[in-house]
Amino acid sequence: MRGIPRPATRIVLGCVAFLTAASGFAQTDPLPSWNDTAPKKAILKFVADTTTNGAPSLVPPDQRIATFDNDGTLWAEQPMYFQLAFALERVKQMAPQHPEWKTTEPFKSVLAGDMKAVLAQGSKGLMTVMAATHTGMTTDEFSAEVVAWSKTARHPKTQKLYVEMVYQPMLELLTYLRSQGFKTFIVSGGGQEFMRAWTERVYGVPPEQVVGSDLDMKYELRGEKPVLIKLAKISLVDDGPGKPAGIQRFIGRRPFFAFGNSDGDQQMLEWTWAGDGTRFCGIVHHTDAEREWAYDHPSKIGQLDKALVEAKAKGWVVVDMKKDWKRVFPFE
Amino acid sequence: MRGIPRPATRIVLGCVAFLTAASGFAQTDPLPSWNDTAPKKAILKFVADTTTNGAPSLVPPDQRIATFDNDGTLWAEQPMYFQLAFALERVKQMAPQHPEWKTTEPFKSVLAGDMKAVLAQGSKGLMTVMAATHTGMTTDEFSAEVVAWSKTARHPKTQKLYVEMVYQPMLELLTYLRSQGFKTFIVSGGGQEFMRAWTERVYGVPPEQVVGSDLDMKYELRGEKPVLIKLAKISLVDDGPGKPAGIQRFIGRRPFFAFGNSDGDQQMLEWTWAGDGTRFCGIVHHTDAEREWAYDHPSKIGQLDKALVEAKAKGWVVVDMKKDWKRVFPFE
Repeated sequence: MRGIPRPATRIVLGCVAFLTAASGFAQTDPLPSWNDTAPKKAILKFVADTTTNGAPSLVPPDQRIATFDNDGTLWAEQPMYFQLAFALERVKQMAPQHPEWKTTEPFKSVLAGDMKAVLAQGSKGLMTVMAATHTGMTTDEFSAEVVAWSKTARHPKTQKLYVEMVYQPMLELLTYLRSQGFKTFIVSGGGQEFMRAWTERVYGVPPEQVVGSDLDMKYELRGEKPVLIKLAKISLVDDGPGKPAGIQRFIGRRPFFAFGNSDGDQQMLEWTWAGDGTRFCGIVHHTDAEREWAYDHPSKIGQLDKALVEAKAKGWVVVDMKKDWKRVFPFE
Repeated sequence: MRGIPRPATRIVLGCVAFLTAASGFAQTDPLPSWNDTAPKKAILKFVADTTTNGAPSLVPPDQRIATFDNDGTLWAEQPMYFQLAFALERVKQMAPQHPEWKTTEPFKSVLAGDMKAVLAQGSKGLMTVMAATHTGMTTDEFSAEVVAWSKTARHPKTQKLYVEMVYQPMLELLTYLRSQGFKTFIVSGGGQEFMRAWTERVYGVPPEQVVGSDLDMKYELRGEKPVLIKLAKISLVDDGPGKPAGIQRFIGRRPFFAFGNSDGDQQMLEWTWAGDGTRFCGIVHHTDAEREWAYDHPSKIGQLDKALVEAKAKGWVVVDMKKDWKRVFPFE
C-alpha cells in the first residue's frame, strides 16, 4: 500500500480489524452459550489435558472417542419422547390404509387424540404403536418417512420443528470436541434408524456414528431390487446396561468423554469413568422450568436419580441448565 | 552449500535424488503390486470418476464408503479359517484348567491334534470349540488373548505370522482409497471382536470400522469395576444376507465400493451394486496354487460359485490372482 489511506480504505481496514477481533474472540471462547461456571471450566480443562502435545494425559487422536445420549442430552424430551410423537403422527397418516384401526386399541385412542387412554394401556399399547409404525417397511421407506416428519412436525409447546428443539450449548460442545480431534458418537436409547435420518444435518454426526436401539432386518430381492425389511424383533435395547454393550459392539473402544442426562446413562458413564487416564463424565440436569422443563425424579421420562447420586460420589460434572447455560435453544 | 561437493556429500545427494524419484513414482502408481490388467484399470477409473471435482459421478466425501470382506479378500483362509486356528490353539492353552476335556469330544480330538476327527463331528463340534474359546470371559480378556496370538501364532505352510498372510495388493488398495477420501470398513463373517484386536495395526482400519459376526454381551460390576462378558448368544451372523443387514446396522449408508471373494459376499455386492450412480464391485478369485491357493467350487472354505455367475452377468470386476497380482504377500 502506498501513500495516506483514503476514507474507503480506512473503513475496509476498520472492518478487517473488527473481523480479526471477532474471530479472535471465537477462537478463545468455543462455548459462548455456556456461562463461565464449573462445567464449562471442567470441559475446557479436560480438552486441554487430553489434547496438548507433551501433556502426561495426552490421548492419541485415534482414541479420542466422545459419546452423547440424545433424548434430554442433545434435544428435549418433553412432554413425550419425540420419537413417540413421530409414531403417533404416523398412525394418523397410515389410518386410511387401516380401516380396522377405527375400532381397535390402541389405535382407536391414538386417532381420537386421547393420550390418556393410550398411556392407560401401558407399555403393551405403546409397543403395538411402535411396531405398526416402525416395522414391515423397507429401511429406505422408513428413512424417507422420518426425513419428511423432521421437516414438518412441530412441537406442541414451542411450535418449532422438533429438530430445532436441540440444545445450543451441546451443539457448540460437539463442534468444539470435533475441532480438537474427537470423534463424536450418539449412544441413545432412541431408535437408531430414526435418528440417522437427520443427525448429520442437525448435529454433524454421520449415520455410522449413531448407535441406538435397533431391530433385526431381513434382506430380500424384489424382482432385481434388493431391499432390507425392518422386522418386529429387537436386536439391541441401547439403554442402561445396554449402552456399554452398544458402545463395545459399535465402537469397540471405551469413550474418554461421555454425556447423558438420566439413569439410562448411568452405565455408559460408569464404563467411561472406569477407563485409564483422564476421562470426562457429564450429566445435563433439567432445572429450568422457564426456558425448558424442570424434572429429575420421580419422572416417567428421563428419570435422574441413581446417576445423580453416583455423579456426586465420583465427581462427574453436573450441568445445572438454569445456572450454567446462557442460552438453551438456538431459536432463543 | 559452498565449494565442490566431497564424495560423501555426493552419495547423500544421490540418495536424495533416488528417494525423490521413488516417491514421485509412488504418486503416479498407487497400486504397484497390481499388474496393469483390467482390474487395476477399473479401480483407477472408478476412483477418478467418483472423486474428480466437477465429474458428473462425483461422490461427496462423507458418502465415500468402501467395504471389504476379510477372509480370502484381505488375508488368506487356507487350510482353515485363521480364527478357527486361533480357537484350536486356545483349547490347548486352556486345557490345564479343563481336565475333563481329555475325555470329552470335541476337545479330546483337538488336543490329540486329530483334525479329521474334529471335522467329522460337523458344525456342532466346531460350535462347541468356538463357544468354549470365545465366550464367558470379559471383552478385555478376550482381546488380550487375540493380541497375544496375533504376535506369535504362525501359519503351518509359510511359517509366517497369520497377520503377515495379508494380500499386499489389497493393503495398497485400502491405502489408496483412504488417500482419496474413502472410509474403509471391514464387513466379514469372522468374529468382530477377534478382528478388532489387530485390524488397525495390520490394515489401518480402526475398531469402529470393523463389522463382523458378533455375540451378545452382559454388563456387570465386579466390585467397583464394570466389565462386559461375552455371552454364548449370537447377535449377528455377518455373512450372506447378513452382510447388507450388518452394513445397514453399523454403517447406515450403502457402500459405493465393495470387495469380496466368496458366495458369502454375494448379497453385499448386490446391495452395493443396486445403489444410484457409479458403484464398484470386486471379487478376488483364488487362482494361484503356487503363490497362494487355487479354489472356487466346490470348496468348504470360501466357496465361489453363484457370486461368480452374477459377477459375469453384471460386469463386476473379477481379480484373477495369478494374472492380476504382481505380488501376493508382503514377505515375498
